[in-house]
Amino acid sequence: MFEAILHGSAPVQRRAMAKAITLLESTRADHRQQADELLTALLPHTGRAFRLGISGVPGVGKSTFIEALGLHLIGQGHRVAVLAVDPSSSVSGGSILGDKTRMEHLSVHERAYIRPSPSSGTLGGVAEKTREAMLVCEAAGYDVVIVETVGVGQSETTVANMTDMFVLMQLPNAGDDLQAIKKGVMEIADLVVINKADLDAIAATRAQAQITSSLRLLGLHGNPDNAHHNELVWHPQVIQLSALQGLGVDAFWAKVLEFKKLQVSSGKQVTRRQNQALAWMWERIDAGLKQAFRQHPDVQTLLPKLTHEVLEGRMAASTAARNMLAAQTK
Amino acid sequence: MFEAILHGSAPVQRRAMAKAITLLESTRADHRQQADELLTALLPHTGRAFRLGISGVPGVGKSTFIEALGLHLIGQGHRVAVLAVDPSSSVSGGSILGDKTRMEHLSVHERAYIRPSPSSGTLGGVAEKTREAMLVCEAAGYDVVIVETVGVGQSETTVANMTDMFVLMQLPNAGDDLQAIKKGVMEIADLVVINKADLDAIAATRAQAQITSSLRLLGLHGNPDNAHHNELVWHPQVIQLSALQGLGVDAFWAKVLEFKKLQVSSGKQVTRRQNQALAWMWERIDAGLKQAFRQHPDVQTLLPKLTHEVLEGRMAASTAARNMLAAQTK
Repeated sequence: MFEAILHGSAPVQRRAMAKAITLLESTRADHRQQADELLTALLPHTGRAFRLGISGVPGVGKSTFIEALGLHLIGQGHRVAVLAVDPSSSVSGGSILGDKTRMEHLSVHERAYIRPSPSSGTLGGVAEKTREAMLVCEAAGYDVVIVETVGVGQSETTVANMTDMFVLMQLPNAGDDLQAIKKGVMEIADLVVINKADLDAIAATRAQAQITSSLRLLGLHGNPDNAHHNELVWHPQVIQLSALQGLGVDAFWAKVLEFKKLQVSSGKQVTRRQNQALAWMWERIDAGLKQAFRQHPDVQTLLPKLTHEVLEGRMAASTAARNMLAAQTK
Repeated sequence: MFEAILHGSAPVQRRAMAKAITLLESTRADHRQQADELLTALLPHTGRAFRLGISGVPGVGKSTFIEALGLHLIGQGHRVAVLAVDPSSSVSGGSILGDKTRMEHLSVHERAYIRPSPSSGTLGGVAEKTREAMLVCEAAGYDVVIVETVGVGQSETTVANMTDMFVLMQLPNAGDDLQAIKKGVMEIADLVVINKADLDAIAATRAQAQITSSLRLLGLHGNPDNAHHNELVWHPQVIQLSALQGLGVDAFWAKVLEFKKLQVSSGKQVTRRQNQALAWMWERIDAGLKQAFRQHPDVQTLLPKLTHEVLEGRMAASTAARNMLAAQTK
């Protein structure tokens, strides 16, 4: 599988990738062992892609934009992988990338690889599988990996934490930006894209001005007059485009390259990836510790009992916690 | 100590409370055992106070306001405890409530009890000690407990999660509210107070209108025309006052009582406290699991090694996490 992923002919490689990702998504212990060995073998061949996160509410035009961008990049000689993080997929049966028909030209292109969101329950679990799938794509030579998400719960933060650049797509509606500020999404966006700008040029321009001013108030947007003072610092920007008309896709990619150049030359891309890897490691440790705790027989006996005591006000929450922690280690 | 806290004369009770809180803050295992026994004994005598969280940036006038409010409440026959959550206190030596001279009249009153922030390192640790101190105050018959915090990191959320009502104090400055939205504080505020309104009435009224409109955009502020449709739902409100002049303190307390009445009659106060207790229990379990993990000898050996491998890109973060989790349980 390792050789086929790295050097297989197009169809052989594609089959090997699908097989590897299925293995990584398996919950069987022996599969997990094999998956870890495969990951470790692939790792030296990863990390050379640019990782682009894209988020936006349903209806903002993510699929249309990703298809237009993907075809544009393939035209320039890139190979493009599209992955998705959809924590709701296990419930809804997959609300994004469920049907590839939404990217009908890109999905059939031999230089593109599209994989729907894994459907394991928690956001942490979905994120882990997507991160690992990203490494498989990179080892297979895809040099642009796009990770798409809708704004469900913490999924934007999760995607921002696994990509080199995080793009927030917005509609030209006022108020939309306040929701993004409220959810802390504006804060993590490296670039804000106002899509469907062709439908209402005045609204799009007003939204661009509003979001720019919000970014400035949030202290995220630099004063352009002082730009020469900190040439190595990227300030989030706001651009307009129309994915459906194919307008602005080249300007978007130019911004991405500008960002990438700055991040690479300042060393920030390396630092960001290292911080992401450490945070990911601890996130998985936390999840594993909690799972082991919940599965401990004594905890399983005590948990419903002490939860009841706490809810009835007969035991302090901290006392209940200490009792169960002691039971687990006894 | 138990009897003295419940029924001691004023000076005896005060000494017993101080002794109990010191015991609760101790890290010695035998002290912790005694502390848990004391907590469990006190618990049936707690829960009858109203728990009020107050937050605001340094300079907003929290101490002045709490002193004015405390004296007002004492005048009405209440007994008032003031606690603080200051996660920076272990570093700075205590930036809030460090000197009681800031509440000189309240601090010497026999119907008031003021306790500075515990100085244990993490926010979780500080919060735990404050929650437990709150229970001691309640058992001693204090019927209003005020928990104060400055906006450091997640401390506002922490305080909102241990109180019945969370109040955000703001200065009459534009832009201030956007910072609060960004940090998610506006979202958790039950009431927003614009202090120092006497200094600039026009700015205060503008701030009140701006924040009200932000709350409406965030979907937190109800349409007053529809108020009769959901009489049992509280919508966050914005009021002006001047703590220094003593103006608006009675109106503030009237709002608190209005909120409290609604929460009690709708059953939301009980639900909120139960949710807080469960969240607190899990927060302490998480902290305990992580501490035990870090202290495991095999983990202590592996952690620096695998962290290095992850940072150098030779091992996937999830593989490193799995290896260490396996080492701990072996």
